[in-house]
Amino acid sequence: MNNDMLIRVTRYYRALNRLRTIGLEKVFAHNLADAAGVSAAVVRKDFSQLEIHGQKRGGYEITDLIERIGSILGKGDEQHVIVVGCGRIGKALMHYSGFESDGIRIVAGFDNDPLVYSDPSQPIPVYPMSRLEEVIGALKVDVAIITVPESAATDTYSDLLAAGITGVMNFSPVTLKPVRTRDGIMPVVHNINIGLELEQIFYELKFPKE
Amino acid sequence: MNNDMLIRVTRYYRALNRLRTIGLEKVFAHNLADAAGVSAAVVRKDFSQLEIHGQKRGGYEITDLIERIGSILGKGDEQHVIVVGCGRIGKALMHYSGFESDGIRIVAGFDNDPLVYSDPSQPIPVYPMSRLEEVIGALKVDVAIITVPESAATDTYSDLLAAGITGVMNFSPVTLKPVRTRDGIMPVVHNINIGLELEQIFYELKFPKE
Repeated sequence: MNNDMLIRVTRYYRALNRLRTIGLEKVFAHNLADAAGVSAAVVRKDFSQLEIHGQKRGGYEITDLIERIGSILGKGDEQHVIVVGCGRIGKALMHYSGFESDGIRIVAGFDNDPLVYSDPSQPIPVYPMSRLEEVIGALKVDVAIITVPESAATDTYSDLLAAGITGVMNFSPVTLKPVRTRDGIMPVVHNINIGLELEQIFYELKFPKE
Repeated sequence: MNNDMLIRVTRYYRALNRLRTIGLEKVFAHNLADAAGVSAAVVRKDFSQLEIHGQKRGGYEITDLIERIGSILGKGDEQHVIVVGCGRIGKALMHYSGFESDGIRIVAGFDNDPLVYSDPSQPIPVYPMSRLEEVIGALKVDVAIITVPESAATDTYSDLLAAGITGVMNFSPVTLKPVRTRDGIMPVVHNINIGLELEQIFYELKFPKE
């Protein structure tokens, strides 16, 4: 499955879970197409590649589809994430409950500021950065969200890899690169650069593709 | 220029501005390669396609490069953005000053909650949603960041297009699609789905590409 197809299939999976929540039992290719922003023909092609077949004219059973696609995506247990850097963006993520319907839960935050990590009003436990390795080991977490300031991003990234993190979503404007660790592990890094996205939007408005 | 190249060139541009800020005058292909997460060969290929030539062994003059790439990217005046939905994520963006070095400024926020739009402690003016069209017209803004809850995303998107917005960065988990408006304008929409990104990281960790 290539990256574009993975994105689509993950979107189908999310849409299916939402449709089930509102009580639907059956779904048609064009419902999923709408949810994923593609055409119904693309949905049918993806399903045929995944060897998922609907009933003629009857659409697909949502429960079946969730199970099939879930096992393809390797779903199962709840997936745990930590947030490193509990400034405004980090705190917004810690308070956001929208991941839970996707089986993702933020289990801990980390910050250097004693006013932050000793504040009992946080929705989840926040630890000092010095306890990164200990807590990651104890909680057996693989994935971290980096929301530290730009100047701290590179060091934080090295510390996380050294502490056993293998997946990173980076919100700092520094582009972090996946570099094989001493243990031979190639981390998965997604850089989300909000300023860069905005610049691209301005560029595309200025020089339309069509 | 295709999308991948646009992303790289935008990264070069950002890196150049940062390097100039710290007092550098010259830059080499491998410096920009590091900053953009590509190889020096890719930087040289991009530059040759853009008809940018360095001095032999001397690297590139940073000021020259910024001017050349800036004009290719259509840079010039400051670019204005509004934030629609001033919850935690919206507020975090309004307080974030990291865009300013890229010439991007958030000029207004919008929210339905009187406690939010009448709060004088906001770093930028926040208006009620009912004033969307009026304020967008007065400020001549083209680009909006959507940070409303999932249930309000689709309606907000329609309202923004009706009010003349042509570029959207959407942080809600709903996938918004670019649909040609009545005025024949095709909006530019970037969907940033944090839950989806996390799911992809988990998937890539479970099923490595190599």
